[in-house]
Amino acid sequence: MRLLAAILSLTAATHSSAQTSSGNIAAPSPTATVTAADIESVSPALNNYIAATINGDLWKRPELSPRDRSIVVLAILISTNQAVELKHHLRFAMDNGVTPKEISEIITHLAFYSGVGKATAAVVLAKEAFAERGIGPDQIPPEKPHLLPLNQEAESARVKTVAENVGPVSPGLEKFTTDLLFTDLWLRPDLAPRDRSLVTVSALIANGQVGQVGFHLNKAADGGLTKEQAGEVVLQAAFYGGWPNAFSAVPVVGEVFKNRKS
Amino acid sequence: MRLLAAILSLTAATHSSAQTSSGNIAAPSPTATVTAADIESVSPALNNYIAATINGDLWKRPELSPRDRSIVVLAILISTNQAVELKHHLRFAMDNGVTPKEISEIITHLAFYSGVGKATAAVVLAKEAFAERGIGPDQIPPEKPHLLPLNQEAESARVKTVAENVGPVSPGLEKFTTDLLFTDLWLRPDLAPRDRSLVTVSALIANGQVGQVGFHLNKAADGGLTKEQAGEVVLQAAFYGGWPNAFSAVPVVGEVFKNRKS
Amino acid sequence: MRLLAAILSLTAATHSSAQTSSGNIAAPSPTATVTAADIESVSPALNNYIAATINGDLWKRPELSPRDRSIVVLAILISTNQAVELKHHLRFAMDNGVTPKEISEIITHLAFYSGVGKATAAVVLAKEAFAERGIGPDQIPPEKPHLLPLNQEAESARVKTVAENVGPVSPGLEKFTTDLLFTDLWLRPDLAPRDRSLVTVSALIANGQVGQVGFHLNKAADGGLTKEQAGEVVLQAAFYGGWPNAFSAVPVVGEVFKNRKS
Repeated sequence: MRLLAAILSLTAATHSSAQTSSGNIAAPSPTATVTAADIESVSPALNNYIAATINGDLWKRPELSPRDRSIVVLAILISTNQAVELKHHLRFAMDNGVTPKEISEIITHLAFYSGVGKATAAVVLAKEAFAERGIGPDQIPPEKPHLLPLNQEAESARVKTVAENVGPVSPGLEKFTTDLLFTDLWLRPDLAPRDRSLVTVSALIANGQVGQVGFHLNKAADGGLTKEQAGEVVLQAAFYGGWPNAFSAVPVVGEVFKNRKS
Repeated sequence: MRLLAAILSLTAATHSSAQTSSGNIAAPSPTATVTAADIESVSPALNNYIAATINGDLWKRPELSPRDRSIVVLAILISTNQAVELKHHLRFAMDNGVTPKEISEIITHLAFYSGVGKATAAVVLAKEAFAERGIGPDQIPPEKPHLLPLNQEAESARVKTVAENVGPVSPGLEKFTTDLLFTDLWLRPDLAPRDRSLVTVSALIANGQVGQVGFHLNKAADGGLTKEQAGEVVLQAAFYGGWPNAFSAVPVVGEVFKNRKS
Repeated sequence: MRLLAAILSLTAATHSSAQTSSGNIAAPSPTATVTAADIESVSPALNNYIAATINGDLWKRPELSPRDRSIVVLAILISTNQAVELKHHLRFAMDNGVTPKEISEIITHLAFYSGVGKATAAVVLAKEAFAERGIGPDQIPPEKPHLLPLNQEAESARVKTVAENVGPVSPGLEKFTTDLLFTDLWLRPDLAPRDRSLVTVSALIANGQVGQVGFHLNKAADGGLTKEQAGEVVLQAAFYGGWPNAFSAVPVVGEVFKNRKS
C-alpha cells in the first residue's frame, strides 16, 4: 500500500485534476504555470523587472486604471496566443475588477478580430479560471441578450465605405461585417463599446496591424478614451506585445488625436 | 483492488493514451481538446456563433467547396501556430475530403512558408490524427516522388527577378529559393499547384504579409482559382485569421483580378 | 503487483518526471517533443529536408557560425512563441556554444522586444533544459551586474529622436525606453551588444517588423556584423521564420549596407 500511496501522490502532484460541476474528473491543465521561482531560476533579472518595473511601477501608473490595463493585456495575450501568460492574467484581470461577463465577451469579440482559434484556445484557460473561482452560468452573458441601440449615422457611413471597398472583392466579407459584427457583436451589452474598442485597438497594436488602428482608436475616443489613456495603452502594449509593435503604433495614435483636436 | 481500479480509471480519464503501431504506449496529447460544452460554459454566444454562423452558414456557402475551405483553414492554423483549433481541423479536413497525402504536403510546404517549427508542431497533431484513423505509410507521400514538369518560362522570369533583388543581399536565400522551393517543393505532385498556391496565399493573408499575396494569388489564378473563390478565401481567412488580416488583403486581391481582366 | 508495475510503467512512459533540486517531483513538460521518427511518419520529405538541407547544408555554411545561427534561431522561436521547436533548440544552442548566461539574457532581452509572455513561456522550457544539464545559479547572470559603459553620443541622438516622436504621444513609453532599455537592458554585460542586436534583428525579421530593422541592423553592424553575415541571418530567418518574412527583410538589409559603404 505504500507503493500505491506513492503512485497516488505522484498522480496528484503532477496533475492537480479538478472535479467538474458535471461530476467528471477534469483533465489536467495542458498549459504550464510559470512561477516567480521558475523565472528566478532562469533569469533573476527578468524576475526583478517583472516584480519591480512591471508589477511595481507600470501597473501602478495613475494614467490608466488596473482594470483597463488588464483589458489591454487580455486582448494582447489572447490575440497573440500566449497561453502561459494568459493563464495568470485571466485571474489577475478578475482581481483588477474585470468581470467574468466582460472576460467572456472579450474572448467572443476576439474570435472575430483575431480568429476563432485564438478564442477557443482562450476558452480552455478561462473555463479553468472560472471553475477555480466558482463562477457559474449566472455570471456568464446570455447567448442572445437585448442589444444596445445602433448609431445609425455612423453605421450608414461605415456600410457605404465597406460596400465600395470590400463588396466588389468579397461580397461575403461585406455581408458578415455588417450582419455579424456591427449590428450584432458590437451591440452586445456585457462589454461597453468603449471597452470593446480598447480590446480591438490593443489586439491591432500587438499584431502589428496599424493600418486599422485609426478607425478603432477614434471609436474608442468617441467612447471616452482620452489621449493620455491612449498613450498609456501604447506603453502597456510595449510590455505585453513587444516594444517594436508599440513604436509602430505611435505615429498613428498621434495622428488620431491631432485630428480630433482641430 | 478498488483503489487500483480507481487509479487506473483516473489515468485513463486524464490521458487517453493510445497504443502506437510500434507497440509502444503513446504519450498523451499535450494539446487541449476544446468541446462545444467547454465553449458554452465560457461563452454561449461564441458557441452559437460557431454552430450557427460558422458551421451552419460560412462552411455551407457554395462559392467555395468545404475541401478548399479546409485547405485554407489548415494553412492559417498551421502558419499561425494555433494548436488547439488545428487539432480539430486536421480531422475535419479529412472529413471534407482533404487526403492525408495533401495534409502531409501542406505541412511540408508551410515548413518553408511559415518556418520549420510551425511544421514540426503540426506534425505532433497530424501524427495523432493519422494514428486515430489508421492511416499508415502507404497513405503518406514518398520522400522523393517523380516531380511535376517545370514551367521554364515562368521560372526564368522568377529567377531573373530574384537574382537582381535578393542575390546581392543574400546569395544563400537566392540559391535555396531556386533549388529547394521552385525546382523541388513546388513540383511535388501530391498537392496540386493550385492548392499549393491556395495554401501559400492563405498563410500570407493570416500573417499580414500582403506584399507577397499578389505574386502567389496570380499563381493560384493561373491554376484555376476564380475571382469569386478568392473573395471567399478572404472571407474564410476573416473567420480563422481575424477580420483585420482579411480587410488588409482586400485591396491586393482586388488589384490582382482587375489586372488579370484587362 | 504486476498490475501495479504496469501502472508505474505507464506513468513513467507518459511523464518523464524529473526530480528537482528542491527535492520535489517536477511537473511533466507540457510541451510536446517531436522526434525524427514522428516527422518521418507524417512527412518523410520534411524529415529529409530537415536532415539533408537544414542540418546537413544550412547549418554548415561557413558564412555564419553555428553559434550565431543558434542565436538567430532562439530569437525567432522565442519571439514567435514556437514552443515545440524551441524545446529542441535550447539544447542545440548550448551544443553550439551559446552559454546558459547568454540564453538567460536572450530571454530577458526578448521580454521587452517581443512581450513579457513570450519570455515567461521560454522560461518554462529553459528551466527544463538547464535542469537536464545540471546548470545551477552560478551559471546564470546576476540580477544587477556591473553595466557596460554607455555610448553617450549615440544615446543622446536616440534620446532626441524619441523625445520628438514618442514623447508627445506616450510619455511613459519615452521614459521606459530610456530608463529600462537603453541605459539598463542593453548595457547588461552577459550578452555582447553585437549579439543583442543580432537577437533584436532576428526577432524583428521573424515578426515582419521591417520598419525597425534598419536602426538595429546598423547597431549590429557597428558591433561587427558583416554584410555577408547579415545576408546569412536573412537565410537562417527564412528557414525558421518563413520565406515571406525573409523576402520582406531583403530590401531593408540591402539598404543598410549600401548606406554604410558610401
